[in-house]
Amino acid sequence: MDPTYRLIVSCPDRVGIVAAVSGFIADHGGWIIEASQHADPVSKWFFMRYEILAESLSFDLDTFRAKFTPIAHEMDMRWRVADATVRRPLVLMAGRQPHCVADLLHRWHSGEMHIDVRGVISNHEDLSEYVGWYGLPYYHIPTPTDDKAAAFRAIEEVLEKLQPEVIVLARFMQILPTSICQQYASSIINIHHSFLPSFVGARPYHQASERGVKLIGATCHYVTEELDAGPIIEQDVLRVRHDDTIEDLVRLGRDVERTVLARGLRYHLEDRVLIHGHKTIVFD
Amino acid sequence: MDPTYRLIVSCPDRVGIVAAVSGFIADHGGWIIEASQHADPVSKWFFMRYEILAESLSFDLDTFRAKFTPIAHEMDMRWRVADATVRRPLVLMAGRQPHCVADLLHRWHSGEMHIDVRGVISNHEDLSEYVGWYGLPYYHIPTPTDDKAAAFRAIEEVLEKLQPEVIVLARFMQILPTSICQQYASSIINIHHSFLPSFVGARPYHQASERGVKLIGATCHYVTEELDAGPIIEQDVLRVRHDDTIEDLVRLGRDVERTVLARGLRYHLEDRVLIHGHKTIVFD
Amino acid sequence: MDPTYRLIVSCPDRVGIVAAVSGFIADHGGWIIEASQHADPVSKWFFMRYEILAESLSFDLDTFRAKFTPIAHEMDMRWRVADATVRRPLVLMAGRQPHCVADLLHRWHSGEMHIDVRGVISNHEDLSEYVGWYGLPYYHIPTPTDDKAAAFRAIEEVLEKLQPEVIVLARFMQILPTSICQQYASSIINIHHSFLPSFVGARPYHQASERGVKLIGATCHYVTEELDAGPIIEQDVLRVRHDDTIEDLVRLGRDVERTVLARGLRYHLEDRVLIHGHKTIVFD
Amino acid sequence: MDPTYRLIVSCPDRVGIVAAVSGFIADHGGWIIEASQHADPVSKWFFMRYEILAESLSFDLDTFRAKFTPIAHEMDMRWRVADATVRRPLVLMAGRQPHCVADLLHRWHSGEMHIDVRGVISNHEDLSEYVGWYGLPYYHIPTPTDDKAAAFRAIEEVLEKLQPEVIVLARFMQILPTSICQQYASSIINIHHSFLPSFVGARPYHQASERGVKLIGATCHYVTEELDAGPIIEQDVLRVRHDDTIEDLVRLGRDVERTVLARGLRYHLEDRVLIHGHKTIVFD
Repeated sequence: MDPTYRLIVSCPDRVGIVAAVSGFIADHGGWIIEASQHADPVSKWFFMRYEILAESLSFDLDTFRAKFTPIAHEMDMRWRVADATVRRPLVLMAGRQPHCVADLLHRWHSGEMHIDVRGVISNHEDLSEYVGWYGLPYYHIPTPTDDKAAAFRAIEEVLEKLQPEVIVLARFMQILPTSICQQYASSIINIHHSFLPSFVGARPYHQASERGVKLIGATCHYVTEELDAGPIIEQDVLRVRHDDTIEDLVRLGRDVERTVLARGLRYHLEDRVLIHGHKTIVFD
Repeated sequence: MDPTYRLIVSCPDRVGIVAAVSGFIADHGGWIIEASQHADPVSKWFFMRYEILAESLSFDLDTFRAKFTPIAHEMDMRWRVADATVRRPLVLMAGRQPHCVADLLHRWHSGEMHIDVRGVISNHEDLSEYVGWYGLPYYHIPTPTDDKAAAFRAIEEVLEKLQPEVIVLARFMQILPTSICQQYASSIINIHHSFLPSFVGARPYHQASERGVKLIGATCHYVTEELDAGPIIEQDVLRVRHDDTIEDLVRLGRDVERTVLARGLRYHLEDRVLIHGHKTIVFD
Repeated sequence: MDPTYRLIVSCPDRVGIVAAVSGFIADHGGWIIEASQHADPVSKWFFMRYEILAESLSFDLDTFRAKFTPIAHEMDMRWRVADATVRRPLVLMAGRQPHCVADLLHRWHSGEMHIDVRGVISNHEDLSEYVGWYGLPYYHIPTPTDDKAAAFRAIEEVLEKLQPEVIVLARFMQILPTSICQQYASSIINIHHSFLPSFVGARPYHQASERGVKLIGATCHYVTEELDAGPIIEQDVLRVRHDDTIEDLVRLGRDVERTVLARGLRYHLEDRVLIHGHKTIVFD
Repeated sequence: MDPTYRLIVSCPDRVGIVAAVSGFIADHGGWIIEASQHADPVSKWFFMRYEILAESLSFDLDTFRAKFTPIAHEMDMRWRVADATVRRPLVLMAGRQPHCVADLLHRWHSGEMHIDVRGVISNHEDLSEYVGWYGLPYYHIPTPTDDKAAAFRAIEEVLEKLQPEVIVLARFMQILPTSICQQYASSIINIHHSFLPSFVGARPYHQASERGVKLIGATCHYVTEELDAGPIIEQDVLRVRHDDTIEDLVRLGRDVERTVLARGLRYHLEDRVLIHGHKTIVFD
C-alpha cells in the first residue's frame, strides 16, 4: 500500500467545514483516498477522517501542520495529522490467560498488525516463555493484595521506560490506579468479557450463566477511572445454549474476546476512533 | 405433518430415567420422532422432551396419562403430555405500536403459527382497525395513571372471559399487577426492547444510545413480578453505528423485536421451553 | 426530520472532486448533514453521496441543477440530486406467498417506508383481499405456461399506466422478459431466497437442504437479463441445523427474506446504492 | 471433567431403538450425561450420541463392546464407542499461511483442544520455526508442479509413519490425490475460504470480490475426491463492504476461517459429527 497521511478533525458543526478542509488539501495537490464524516445532530459537533496519499501532497507533515493551523484555529478544531507508516509503540498488559496475548502477538508477527510491541507486563509468570519466543521483554510484576500500590508504581516505571502510545489490557485482571488512567487517558484499551453494560466487574461469565442469557459477548473499550464504563469501541456476541456450562462459556468467549479486541485495537491504530464524551465515533 | 404427542419431563437426575421413559413408550409401540434431553450438572436435575407419533401409540392421551403416572411418581417427575394438534388459546396485549401485533397476526393468519387467537387487549385505540380486519375482538381498556387498578381489574375480567393459556405482551408498555403475574405464571411472554440484563425498564433505546453500545437487541422472556427479570427464552442483537439516531435504533430494533418474539413464542407453543428456577432450557 | 436534498455523484477519480463539490455547496450556504465517499482503487472511479439540509441552500433544486452542471461537466460526472421528501412511485409484483408483500405494506402503512405504492401485480389471486384492506389496486394477471408473452404484455401495460420508479419483485416467481428488464433497468429489485451466488434458480431451499449447508440466506439484488446475476444490494443468513426439514428452511427463510428485502429497498429509496458495473456501492 | 465414554449409533429408524440402547446402559448402571438423537424423516435413518459417565458403568470398554454387539446386530447398527479421555493422533497439513496452524497449535498448547499432534506437513518452509517452537516435527515436502506424484508419495509415507486418525488441511493449498482421500476417508478435514457452494476452487476471495457479495465466509468440510464437495461440518460468514479490497477480504477472512475450522474440528474430535450420504448430522 502506498504511504498515506491521516487527518482527524472534530469541531463544532457549521457550514463550510468540508469545503475548507478539502479545499486546503486540493490546493496542495492532495489525493483523498478515504473520507469519513459524521455530524452529531444532538451535540452539533462535526467529525471527519481523511486518508491522503502522502506522495500527492507537495509538502511534508510539518509543513502540513503549519499551513493547516490557521484553518483549524478559525473553526475551533481539535485535530491531528499522522503518518500511517509509523508503527506506534505499544505495551501489552496481561494476567495468566494467554489467548488475547497470543492472538495479538501472532497478528503482529505475521505482519497483519502494524505496531511496535515494546514489551509485555504481567502479574504472573505464565506467559513469559511464549512472549520470550517472540524476542520481546517480559516484565513480571506480581500484584499482591496487600501491596498493590508498590506493584503499580513498578508498572508505572516500566511504562515510563517503554513510552507506549497505546496500552492494551489483554485480560489483565487488575483495576488500574487513577494515576495510570489519567496519564494514559484515551490510550488504554481493555477487553471486557461481557456485552457491556451487562455484567460489569468480576466473573462476567458466571453472571451470564446465572442470569440465563442466550448470547454472551465481549466489549473493547477505553479505560477510564470508572470500572468498565469507558467509551465502547467494539462489541460482538455469540449464541450459547442451556447446556453450555460456565467452562463452555469461558472457552467460547475466548474467541469473541480476541476477535473483538483485535478489531477494536485495529480501529484505534488506524485512527478510526474519535472519542466524543463517553461515546465513540468509529469510522470502520 | 402427522399428529404427534409431546411428552415433557423434568425430575432429579439418576440412572435409568431415559430407559424407563423410552421403555414405556416402546412397550406401547410409540415411535419417537424427536428427542431432546438435558442434565444440569449443577442442580442435578434432568429434563426431556419427546415428540411421539400419535398413531403409533396403542392408546389415547388419557390412557397415556393413567399408565405413565406410576413411572412419573417413582421418579418424582414434573411432567405433562400434550396433543400437538390442539391450538392453544392466546391473548395479545398491546400498546400503540403495531409491529409485533401485526407480525404475530400475520404469522397466525398465514398458517405459520398454530394458535387460537381470542382477542387483543390494548390501552390505546390505534390498532383496532388492523385487528378488526382479521375479525378478532379488540378490547380497548385505557390505563390512566390515576386509575390503573380499575383498568387492570377490567383486563382481568377480559382474560377471565377469554381463558387464554398464553398471554403475549406485544409491546404492551404497562407493568402488570402482581395478581395477573401470579395467576398466569409461566404463561405470560413479553418482548423487551433491549438485550437484557442491559437497559431494564423504560426507554431502553435511549439508554443504549446514551451508553454508546455497538449492538442493540431484544429479549423474549416470561413475565414475573420483578420487572424485566423473568426467565429468558430468546435473545438476539443487531449492529448499530455511531450515526444511528435514537429514531434509527427504534426503527432497526422493531425488526429484531418481532423476530425474537416470534421465535420465543414458537418455542413456548411447541413445548420446547422448560423453566428451571429463573433460567430456561430451550430445546430448539 | 428536516427536509433534505440528496446529491449523488460518480466520476473518474482525481484530485479536487470533494473540494469542488463541497466548495460549491458551501458557497451557497449548504449544510451537509451526511456525507459518504468511496474511491475504487481498481477502476479509479469515485463515488459520493451528500445529504444537504434543504432550507440551508439559497436556491431550489432546479437552480441547484443549473448551477452544478458546469462542475459536473468538467469532471465527467454522472450525477443526480433528489428531494428526499418526495415519495417515489412503487409497484409490487408478487406470487402466492404473502410474507414479503405483507411486510412491505406494513412498513409503508405504519409510516416506516417512505413510498407511494401504486398497486400490486400478481399472477395469483391469493393476496387480493389483503392488499385490498390497504385500499390498493390489485392487478391479477395469470401467467399460464403456454401464454406468458401475452401475460407480460398485460403487465407492461399496467406498469405503463402506474409509472413506477421502483418495481419490487416480492417473491414474484416468474422470470421477467428482456423488454421489462431493459425498460426499468436499475429500478427492479428482487429478493432471491438464497445466499447468491449459491443456489441460483428454482427451489433454492431444496438445493440448500440437498447440499447440507449450515446457513441459509437471502439476497436482495437488481434484476438484469441474466437470472439471479444482477448487482447485489444486501444479503444476510441464518443458522440451520441437520434437523431442519425443507419446510423448516422455507419457514425460517421467510424472516431473512423479508428483512433483507426491506433493508435493500430502503437503501435504494434513500439513494444509498450506486451501481458500478455488476457490483454496488452501498452507503449504509 | 469426569471421564466419559461416547456411544455413537446410526441405523434404520424403527420403534424401540432408544429403549433398547438406554435400557442396556441403565441395566449396567450407566449414567447418561449427554444425549442427542435425530431421526431423518426422508431417509428413515436414526442417529444417536450418548455420553456416559465411565465410572458409572460396571465394566470396561471391551466388555461394553462385547455385550452391546448383539443389540447392534439386531438393529443393523453402525456404531462405535470411544473413550473421551484418549487424545486422537492428528497431523496438520499446511501451506505458507500461518493463521490456521498457529490457531490450532495455540488451542492445543493451551489445553483447549484435546489432541495428540504428531507433526506438521507442509510444501513450504515458512512455518517451520513456529512449529519448531512447539517441539513438533515439521515435514517439508515441496510439491513442484512437474512432480506432484512423487511429493504425494512422500507425504503418504509420512502419514504412514505418523498414523493419524485425523488429518487437518489448515490452508494446505494442494488437491490431495485419490489414494489419500480414500485411505483416510471421513478423517480429513479441510477449511475452505468461502461459504460453499459459492466460490469452489481457487482464489475464492477474488471470486467473492468480483461478484460483489455482502458477506464472505468459510466452510469446514470432510475431504472427498470431488473438490470442495465433501460433507459440510460447519460454516460461518462475516459482513464486508464495498470499500473492502481483496486484501481486506483475505485479512478479515482469516478470522472466520480459523474459527470455523476450530469449531468444526472440535465437533469431529468430540464425536459430534455423523456423516450421512454427503451431508452431516452435527450434535453441537
